[in-house]
Amino acid sequence: MIGSLVNGQAGSSLSLLDRGLQYGDGLFETIAVVERRAALWQRHWERLLLGCRLLGIPEPDREVMEQEVAGLIGDRSFAVLKIIVTRGASERGYRPPDRVSPTRILELFSWEGPSTSPGALAVDLCRQRLGEQPGYAGLKHLNRLEQVLAQRELSSPEGIMLDSEGNLVSGTMSNLFLVIEGRLHTPIIDRCGVAGVVRSLVLETARRMRQPVTVRRIEASELEQAEGLFLTSSLLGIVPVSAVAGQEKVVRLTHHPVMEAAAAKVFTADG
Amino acid sequence: MIGSLVNGQAGSSLSLLDRGLQYGDGLFETIAVVERRAALWQRHWERLLLGCRLLGIPEPDREVMEQEVAGLIGDRSFAVLKIIVTRGASERGYRPPDRVSPTRILELFSWEGPSTSPGALAVDLCRQRLGEQPGYAGLKHLNRLEQVLAQRELSSPEGIMLDSEGNLVSGTMSNLFLVIEGRLHTPIIDRCGVAGVVRSLVLETARRMRQPVTVRRIEASELEQAEGLFLTSSLLGIVPVSAVAGQEKVVRLTHHPVMEAAAAKVFTADG
Repeated sequence: MIGSLVNGQAGSSLSLLDRGLQYGDGLFETIAVVERRAALWQRHWERLLLGCRLLGIPEPDREVMEQEVAGLIGDRSFAVLKIIVTRGASERGYRPPDRVSPTRILELFSWEGPSTSPGALAVDLCRQRLGEQPGYAGLKHLNRLEQVLAQRELSSPEGIMLDSEGNLVSGTMSNLFLVIEGRLHTPIIDRCGVAGVVRSLVLETARRMRQPVTVRRIEASELEQAEGLFLTSSLLGIVPVSAVAGQEKVVRLTHHPVMEAAAAKVFTADG
Repeated sequence: MIGSLVNGQAGSSLSLLDRGLQYGDGLFETIAVVERRAALWQRHWERLLLGCRLLGIPEPDREVMEQEVAGLIGDRSFAVLKIIVTRGASERGYRPPDRVSPTRILELFSWEGPSTSPGALAVDLCRQRLGEQPGYAGLKHLNRLEQVLAQRELSSPEGIMLDSEGNLVSGTMSNLFLVIEGRLHTPIIDRCGVAGVVRSLVLETARRMRQPVTVRRIEASELEQAEGLFLTSSLLGIVPVSAVAGQEKVVRLTHHPVMEAAAAKVFTADG
């Protein structure tokens, strides 16, 4: 970590009573900093606000946040910015206090920048499943044990995760797009998984290009019928998958016009 | 909070990079301190160790932990002790580092001690459901958003939580025992919920009294057939429920020989 702010003050520690630690009671965003600016900032900000509203955490002030982000980034061309917003410190007990003072954490990490020639990625299929929690599916909240345990079992950098019924949901840190008979499909994120900002960029790009994506429940077995599979993430960008669990069936297609149009915007501030 | 130790050192803050904050990657125990001793210590310790093993977190040293606990309690007769063990600090990313240095946190809170005349409790039925996660159901891990959101909606101190299929699981901070035709039943904790230490004390007490408890899937509608309902928790002890969601049907029975035998041990170090 090359820099951090806690509620606007330089600092690298947090109260033991913070509910982020006690219960995972908060949200986060992981953001690519490219040419000194937070990529896809509007999308990250909107997801963070939506999360605050759904969890009942008072929303941070946008102007304050943007000033702090700019100050922390300084003149670094490339970095990873992580924003954490928690429900703040409280005495013991699950029940939130009557008056909440959220904690706003900014962390900056060194990063070499987006890959200039991303090759196709071979991924695993995780044994660890994603539990259904429709109440706050889609949010990037701090309850991430499933992803930690999934990553623990992987030998490749990324793995595909299924829900309890065996449907595709996402990678441990990315979203999925399948190409089936030339058309894009992506798992619906209504019971588990994170609704990624690059995923939303792809969906919007596809609408604009009049090649809409089908958002639906997708069984794992449909991977075998797919011509192509792409991962999307704020740091990876848009990456084709060359093999799933050693099966190279999904490798054939590594380009798709919608994915290419979206990929051109992933690392821009206005994407 | 009246005292705290982080890895044996007095302190009230934690690294921003700790995985307990970043991902809820850890475990906790909430323990009644009665007459200067940690009640049900063996049971709390065993659950903590089981959690470490299942999550792959190196186990803390028992002797070190017990010395720190005794030092922190000092000469306080009554207190609440909270132990948190996380996978420690790491750089960004879900994947645990190759070499893990767990963080061991002890927090002591003031407490008036167990209620000397616990009355029956009226509880709510929570709208917030518990998602199924069989991989680590039963553990007292740090991913507790469900309990936080459940507590947020309650007007009474405690509420009963159901799984996604509508089966009884637990309270937000307690386990459940139903009395049906004179016999004890408790929800099976194999897909969600916490396997409480007082729950384990009741199960063991029942076996010893040759009145075994039926551990099974229990539908919410069975509450209506129950003569009695009890909550168990390390701080509440064993408490009869007088009404669920305003329905006083389950109120009739407030005593049961097994529950009374177990209640006599809840606040003892050797229970």
